Amino acid sequence: MSVSLDNLCVHTITTKPWGLDTAAQKYAAAGVKGMSIWRDAAQSFDGSIKAAGQMVRDEGLDIVSYVRGGFFPALEAADRQKAIDENKIIIDEATDLGAPLIVLVVGATPGQSLFESRQQITDGIAAVLPHAEAAGVKLGIEPLHPMYADSRSAVTTMAQSNAICEAIGHPYLGIALDVFHVWWDDQLEEQTKIAGEKNRLFAFHICDWKDQPEDMLNDRGLMGEGVIDIPQIRSWVNASGFTGYEEVEIFSNKYWAMDQDEYLNLIKQAYLKI
Amino acid sequence: MSVSLDNLCVHTITTKPWGLDTAAQKYAAAGVKGMSIWRDAAQSFDGSIKAAGQMVRDEGLDIVSYVRGGFFPALEAADRQKAIDENKIIIDEATDLGAPLIVLVVGATPGQSLFESRQQITDGIAAVLPHAEAAGVKLGIEPLHPMYADSRSAVTTMAQSNAICEAIGHPYLGIALDVFHVWWDDQLEEQTKIAGEKNRLFAFHICDWKDQPEDMLNDRGLMGEGVIDIPQIRSWVNASGFTGYEEVEIFSNKYWAMDQDEYLNLIKQAYLKI
Repeated sequence: MSVSLDNLCVHTITTKPWGLDTAAQKYAAAGVKGMSIWRDAAQSFDGSIKAAGQMVRDEGLDIVSYVRGGFFPALEAADRQKAIDENKIIIDEATDLGAPLIVLVVGATPGQSLFESRQQITDGIAAVLPHAEAAGVKLGIEPLHPMYADSRSAVTTMAQSNAICEAIGHPYLGIALDVFHVWWDDQLEEQTKIAGEKNRLFAFHICDWKDQPEDMLNDRGLMGEGVIDIPQIRSWVNASGFTGYEEVEIFSNKYWAMDQDEYLNLIKQAYLKI
Repeated sequence: MSVSLDNLCVHTITTKPWGLDTAAQKYAAAGVKGMSIWRDAAQSFDGSIKAAGQMVRDEGLDIVSYVRGGFFPALEAADRQKAIDENKIIIDEATDLGAPLIVLVVGATPGQSLFESRQQITDGIAAVLPHAEAAGVKLGIEPLHPMYADSRSAVTTMAQSNAICEAIGHPYLGIALDVFHVWWDDQLEEQTKIAGEKNRLFAFHICDWKDQPEDMLNDRGLMGEGVIDIPQIRSWVNASGFTGYEEVEIFSNKYWAMDQDEYLNLIKQAYLKI
């Protein structure tokens, strides 16, 4: 059980109706310690991205990650190069923001096999890693649920994430584990252990999978509201040596529609119960 | 490419607006050779299930499978026993219908781990297999997509299906492979080969996974409309020794809303192109 909010981080997308400055003030006032900042939130801030980062830190929050880079595969080489160039820009933005990590939603391309897409993802990540290392920004592959394998992520498991990290072998490349995406995987414990042994478990995202969600994207549940045994997965994550933030990332039409102060309180209460 | 309709089977659910008798007449007139009959279609027939089977055969169609049994896991032992009893009734219905195979959607129970549910599924299947063998009806585990792991199926991969078949080791137990559910799995080729070597690949279901479906249940695509490389998967299925029907099983609010004669023609055209 979470005995305090010391490891609690919230993603800006979780409270989407709030602008970055409101979110920062509200999170800090609520005792949340970390913030993961989505690109749209950073870019909509009234000021530079550097100023956005400073504002968040001035509120007393740690910036945990910048979300998101990736989307490397494409049918045409020119489009794959565009993705590499765009990811370098995203790395520069993370530097300005002061975010130590970029979460990668790696992409997938209808019309080519997932094997081919994973090769292109490997090549794309390898191409941007020198830029990331020079910037001091790490990259975390987030395996997505197989229901997003059509066009969002050819990487659907921790095993595939570990394989890409192993193939590239770079200390700035690791994995962002989101319980929503991988809870169903019978290799989760084993592959989390491997990620820990290789010092590549960079982030831990939490929310819940509701019993029969109404929507493939925006009906995620609060921790404890669904079928995921978060304490079990957390025990594997902790056993792997992870000591970082636990990041609440919830896409939910239902929760976005409610009063966001009340919602943030629900998040805190749910967090303290898992 | 399909050079004829000789291996084409259609599930009654695919043309849900049609009653069983209309479906049988229309399929036969269209040159479809096989029909897989859903329980609701059989039960809504104006006559006994035995008469329903005879009617379908009289139209010249082979009855390929009865859909569906399963849903074995439950928190309470009494409920698991109820599921076993219900599956025996389903086996008796399949006998009356003259269906050689029952497709199993094996179930999952929120509140217990998928590992525990898979053990209960194994126990439940083992408990009904003697009844199935006596009836001459085979059982095919259908691994479902991980997006249904909350409450529909703790079995999400061919590997898990093979493991349950291996643990039980009964010639009447095998696997129903549906491309919609397993297309994303990086072990699909290898596990299909294993199923073939063990003579346990009992059924092959086809449809397509659309790029970003609108609905988790009822937005399946026609073959060729989505991202699944059906010819590739078919080549693995055929290489495993499978020579049975190719069963079109599509849940689609969009297609159910259109003229079903036109839709059946689309199914035929789509089938002849893959």
